[in-house]
Amino acid sequence: MNATEPTAEIISIGNELLIGHTLDTNSHWMAKQFTKMGCIVQRVTQLRDSLDAISSGVRESVRRKPALLVTIGGLGPTYDDMTLRGVALGLNRRMELNEHALQLVKERYRNIDNEPRMTVYRRKMAILPQGGNALPNPVGTAPGVVMKVGNTTLFSLPGVPSEMKAIFRESIIPLIRKMGTRSAYEAQVQIAGIIESALAPILDETRKAYPGLYFKSHPRGRETGVRPLISLHIYNVDPSSELEVLEAMGYVIKKLSATI
Amino acid sequence: MNATEPTAEIISIGNELLIGHTLDTNSHWMAKQFTKMGCIVQRVTQLRDSLDAISSGVRESVRRKPALLVTIGGLGPTYDDMTLRGVALGLNRRMELNEHALQLVKERYRNIDNEPRMTVYRRKMAILPQGGNALPNPVGTAPGVVMKVGNTTLFSLPGVPSEMKAIFRESIIPLIRKMGTRSAYEAQVQIAGIIESALAPILDETRKAYPGLYFKSHPRGRETGVRPLISLHIYNVDPSSELEVLEAMGYVIKKLSATI
Repeated sequence: MNATEPTAEIISIGNELLIGHTLDTNSHWMAKQFTKMGCIVQRVTQLRDSLDAISSGVRESVRRKPALLVTIGGLGPTYDDMTLRGVALGLNRRMELNEHALQLVKERYRNIDNEPRMTVYRRKMAILPQGGNALPNPVGTAPGVVMKVGNTTLFSLPGVPSEMKAIFRESIIPLIRKMGTRSAYEAQVQIAGIIESALAPILDETRKAYPGLYFKSHPRGRETGVRPLISLHIYNVDPSSELEVLEAMGYVIKKLSATI
Repeated sequence: MNATEPTAEIISIGNELLIGHTLDTNSHWMAKQFTKMGCIVQRVTQLRDSLDAISSGVRESVRRKPALLVTIGGLGPTYDDMTLRGVALGLNRRMELNEHALQLVKERYRNIDNEPRMTVYRRKMAILPQGGNALPNPVGTAPGVVMKVGNTTLFSLPGVPSEMKAIFRESIIPLIRKMGTRSAYEAQVQIAGIIESALAPILDETRKAYPGLYFKSHPRGRETGVRPLISLHIYNVDPSSELEVLEAMGYVIKKLSATI
């Protein structure tokens, strides 16, 4: 791992995740985007819809000082949408009405009503932690939020996948580009007929020969089954050693063919 | 939430999760099992294959004193399988060869070799944190591990889904049964033609009328789209109010029909 690559953390919020009702494909998608762009996702946390859980989860993440911290979910108009209050509590900030956010929300409701009533539920989506700026939501009602917390840039995005992805693309990707990150590179190969404990010494040698790369083996069959199968994954986040990934793959294959 | 229900935390370990390579269906499956059996999953954390990440993640979880803490992944024979070392480091315990675990590993390799060589890679799977007991892995090689840490029972399970599920069923479910938990109950309804911000005041009323239940609304369409659709989910973990879930659902529907 190159220590100069920006780090990221993702916090997914919602009881539906923790009761096993909804699979958290949001953080998975986002982790892939971060990785592709050369950011290192250090941790993903799923938290319940609780002010206590959200405030302490956010506080802990901020203490680890990631360059980017993204919360997903809990920005809507209902009572159980409490992410922004949790963020404010965790960071000791007040909640305040944000005029830009209010404009964004109003515009959205004009789609269904020329003079939309700004009920307390609709206004709620425009009340942000102090220091937060609203990010336009091109496909939904609740704006995203961005704020600086020390050296961390904290984003709060809605949990509806299409809205989360749209704001990520419009507001987060350009920021990462500005950071001047470099793309990750990876290679993968399926190895049949060898068990993981037999591959292990070969991987150890390869690891020593290529200390800058990550190696990860995933058993696809059973270690002691009839047709063992391993998926070997080599990757790095430093494009200057893109060639090294392929070299290392060749090295493993050569060692393997000498063994079998 | 009934405060007497046992709490659980899940820690999924593996770089493949944090680079967006593998979707963490393991923790999702496990959260569903815990919920069905009346345990409350407070947090799910995904961590990288790093001693530092694992040891601090485990230490933080243990401080929150869940009744059950389960780590998933990183028990195999290769270098990047470092969960048990991370757990030991996080809890200030030594690593030591566990004779029962060694027996379990040996038996497994007898499937492929009558007198299996116990290489350093195979022995590795029998080196556990002090105080850990081995759990038989009915479908794979690496045994699971269980240990007491204060009032928390900590399990470490392999990341291969079939192995994780088999050990969960054989070793964790019986333990939860002994805790005398009660099953959760839930009801779900799709509501078409109303937007979330209009449902919000009705939900607020219902929430006041049924303070012991959880309510969660998921917008399935767009808040300002042509055909708004909301999925409403009501649940509780206290079976004595199983009927209340249905009552509350009826209450919402009655209120809605008076609105539309």
